[in-house]
Amino acid sequence: MKTLIASLLGAAVLSASLTAQAQLPPEDQIKFRQAGYSFMSWNMGKIKAMAIDEAVEYDQQQILAAANAINGIAQSGMGALFGPGTEADVGDQATRVDPALFDNFPEVAELSKDFVAASDNLVEQAENGEQSDVRAAFAELGKSCKACHDKYRMD
Amino acid sequence: MKTLIASLLGAAVLSASLTAQAQLPPEDQIKFRQAGYSFMSWNMGKIKAMAIDEAVEYDQQQILAAANAINGIAQSGMGALFGPGTEADVGDQATRVDPALFDNFPEVAELSKDFVAASDNLVEQAENGEQSDVRAAFAELGKSCKACHDKYRMD
Repeated sequence: MKTLIASLLGAAVLSASLTAQAQLPPEDQIKFRQAGYSFMSWNMGKIKAMAIDEAVEYDQQQILAAANAINGIAQSGMGALFGPGTEADVGDQATRVDPALFDNFPEVAELSKDFVAASDNLVEQAENGEQSDVRAAFAELGKSCKACHDKYRMD
Repeated sequence: MKTLIASLLGAAVLSASLTAQAQLPPEDQIKFRQAGYSFMSWNMGKIKAMAIDEAVEYDQQQILAAANAINGIAQSGMGALFGPGTEADVGDQATRVDPALFDNFPEVAELSKDFVAASDNLVEQAENGEQSDVRAAFAELGKSCKACHDKYRMD
């Protein structure tokens, strides 16, 4: 029963996202989702450099700005960019997505929920500004990225 | 004098962004800035479809989510992605930037400030939810994009 509810919920979440825009060609969906992940990774890199590696000076405003960028992207409904026809390379767009993702939307919705929660928490800790809290929140966010990559991103 | 102050301010803004992260190779800077613009354009497209073209159902939460994504990206310090060596194509990364941008940082900083203000306002109007206000804010944001494209993006 729990699985059924999760399944319906996952489907509803994805379908809500899908109806919110005109249908995009699969190639554009892949391009936009990769842009989102790429831009998040730049911002993860900045936080890592400041709060973890201490390779550059710790700057709360810059960490908060990076966290807000990640959070804004995480909450933008990227599920809509995993529509039919985006399971494999299309035209010039190569994708590393594991086609298994498309048979497991309820689980993907759960992983996505964890990711959004972790990015919310990162914003909260960046607002608070304590470096040790930012480090912990950053590690949690990294784990939530990896949880999905391990399952649904191919090498 | 005003020009000198603006010039110093522009340089300071850009330099603050630049020190906030480890130096990225020019190729990565171009890749990440294009990812940011690309992801913003996806979110602009969603708002356009809902609030302007009415091609899909008006949904305040989705408009707000799109506005927050744009705003988070706009405020993330993308000036740091226009470092030395990114004036022209590098490796696999093609760029449409006009090299003149790199000689006019103070003006670019002004254009960027207008863009950030317009994206702040879009978030505010999306929170308020009134479609006519969202349309007006969207038009303003579009103008602020175009102001920079007309000057510093090549066809």
